[in-house]
Amino acid sequence: MTPEEGGALTFIEGVLREAGFEVHRLVFTAPGTPDVENLYARYGSGEPYLLFAGHTDVVPPGDATRWRHDPFSGVIDGEELHGRGAVDMKGGIACMMAAALEFIRETSDFKGSIGFLITGDEEGPAINGTVKLLEWAKARGERFNHCILGEPTNPNRLGDMIKIGRRGSLTGRIVVEGKQGHVAYPHLADNPVPGMIRLVDGLLREPLDQGTDHFDASNLEVTTIDVGNPASNVIPAEARATFNIRFNDLWTPQSLEEEVERRLREAAGNTVRYRLAMDPTNAVAFLTPPNTFVGFIADAIEAETGRRPKLSTTGGTSDARFIVKDCPVVEFGLVGQTMHQVDERVAVADLDRLSTIYRKVLDAYFAASADALQA
Amino acid sequence: MTPEEGGALTFIEGVLREAGFEVHRLVFTAPGTPDVENLYARYGSGEPYLLFAGHTDVVPPGDATRWRHDPFSGVIDGEELHGRGAVDMKGGIACMMAAALEFIRETSDFKGSIGFLITGDEEGPAINGTVKLLEWAKARGERFNHCILGEPTNPNRLGDMIKIGRRGSLTGRIVVEGKQGHVAYPHLADNPVPGMIRLVDGLLREPLDQGTDHFDASNLEVTTIDVGNPASNVIPAEARATFNIRFNDLWTPQSLEEEVERRLREAAGNTVRYRLAMDPTNAVAFLTPPNTFVGFIADAIEAETGRRPKLSTTGGTSDARFIVKDCPVVEFGLVGQTMHQVDERVAVADLDRLSTIYRKVLDAYFAASADALQA
Ligand SMILES: [Zn+2]
Ligand SMILES: [Zn+2]
Repeated sequence: MTPEEGGALTFIEGVLREAGFEVHRLVFTAPGTPDVENLYARYGSGEPYLLFAGHTDVVPPGDATRWRHDPFSGVIDGEELHGRGAVDMKGGIACMMAAALEFIRETSDFKGSIGFLITGDEEGPAINGTVKLLEWAKARGERFNHCILGEPTNPNRLGDMIKIGRRGSLTGRIVVEGKQGHVAYPHLADNPVPGMIRLVDGLLREPLDQGTDHFDASNLEVTTIDVGNPASNVIPAEARATFNIRFNDLWTPQSLEEEVERRLREAAGNTVRYRLAMDPTNAVAFLTPPNTFVGFIADAIEAETGRRPKLSTTGGTSDARFIVKDCPVVEFGLVGQTMHQVDERVAVADLDRLSTIYRKVLDAYFAASADALQA
Repeated sequence: MTPEEGGALTFIEGVLREAGFEVHRLVFTAPGTPDVENLYARYGSGEPYLLFAGHTDVVPPGDATRWRHDPFSGVIDGEELHGRGAVDMKGGIACMMAAALEFIRETSDFKGSIGFLITGDEEGPAINGTVKLLEWAKARGERFNHCILGEPTNPNRLGDMIKIGRRGSLTGRIVVEGKQGHVAYPHLADNPVPGMIRLVDGLLREPLDQGTDHFDASNLEVTTIDVGNPASNVIPAEARATFNIRFNDLWTPQSLEEEVERRLREAAGNTVRYRLAMDPTNAVAFLTPPNTFVGFIADAIEAETGRRPKLSTTGGTSDARFIVKDCPVVEFGLVGQTMHQVDERVAVADLDRLSTIYRKVLDAYFAASADALQA
């Protein structure tokens, strides 16, 4: 599990190298974080360059005795493959590799490039992973035209949903300062709780927006309020709150911070003394507009599953937020229902079908003209 | 310090016994609380019966090195006596004893009774102290007509203030129940924070009352709000708050609880799921109306200090709330400025003047007719 490599990258390296890929194993380090193994591989040297991205690390299995099968056994039980990472996302990587290898085998006169950017630090702190891989590749002169990230995007059935963007995430922390005292002498103290109530109410009162064409409305959640005063006869000195905003493409972290400051200033008036600090964020909102590339993926999904996928921007953040700085990125993978849970598992039939979908995308992508791919 | 006796009661016992008092040393115990020593003494067997009440236990001195003098030395430095308990309230007890002994010495043909009810459990849990002393005395057939409690009632100068009542105290605890989830999927979760904000706002919005003839307005303080959620990407399952109300003679704990329930019900509407629990309380609001007895004390103070004292009901609770069930009680003692603090100290001159005041009260009280004392 994250951040241990556990043999997955070595297996991937062997398979890709045998198929003719140039493979790089890269260990990135940073003070205070675990060293992480990553992999970059490329087949071909021409354009266009389609990159598959993913991660081999997985979240911990928790109490293994609660699982039907050993979480790291990969047992096929009936029609399902069981194991941590089955859908998130070793399964997705296997489908990408199967599709790419078949495509290469069956395609003569291939002029483009197919790549794999695989990290072992997506579920961890995400410091020694995709960000550094992209920096390293850029320094080498690698230029990607499009990327498919194989995260499990389907809520219920394969073909439900493509992610064409993600909301941004911004966290802020408020401290309201009062003056400690005895409840019997409130005029000698200054209770910070009523001020905190006003500030939080000011943050929550109005919706941030009504959503956009491809995004839900931005949403603010106050995730905690804490005073930590155990004495019911004492007026506390300080109250603290944390909030997190998932925001759409109407906002940047900067414009959102200004809006938060404005709301707090208005709620505080002249009476509430407070401090606001925003956590640094690398999670901005982004959108890959529904273009030819997105169309290839949606068409391939519909051809294989009979379902036209929803083009969504819901859910949490993913490494797509880093990749999108270099090229348009779309996410499509397995069914996420059991991800991060006990008995994570995937229908074996879904693995076959996802491989076929990726293969159809490769066929359409490399048959298209350069002009079509820009549209 | 509380609950250790430390020799004070033995000293008091010796002095009172020598002056002709019948003295009882009483140890009360209860599971889960420290055993506490207490003292009851009575001189005379007739009526009227004036009781002096007080406590010998003290709050801890904290870091003794921050004191100018050893907190338990009782050093006189210049014109002040230093030490923990100097004003709260070993000093007050000394003045009561000095006044009573002088009165007994100088009064022939005394027909009434003078008593001392001294506890070692006022600053502690207040379980093995005044409440049990009063029960014990009642079981013996002791009946008091009036009581003076010697707590330090003066904010700045001797003679500032008599306490003729105290506000009640009621503590309540609110739990708002939500459903935990990920901030990226708010529709799958239910954040309890906005509901808590509404409930607290509902509690605080309107004043409870405007005060009464002898009382300030009742006051509600929210002393803590706690969610305890360290993860800014998680919507928490539960929010908790505690509030304390200091209430005047317009309310009983029961009527106040009903008002709290009404406010929360209204603020919650149909959307906020919450639980309310009130702590048990023995602190009801009480008033000793300004009558002849209060007048004797105010007159004595004015005669000695030149100041007409304010008749107040402010501040925290005291053992007067227990005594008032048996007889009218008034509180007057030293200047409270340094109580519970580093370098607690009292002007030696104040000890003399407070003794004189108590003596003048005894003179007036036992010279009055039974009818006058009822008025
Ligand atoms: Zn994943
Ligand atoms: Zn006291």
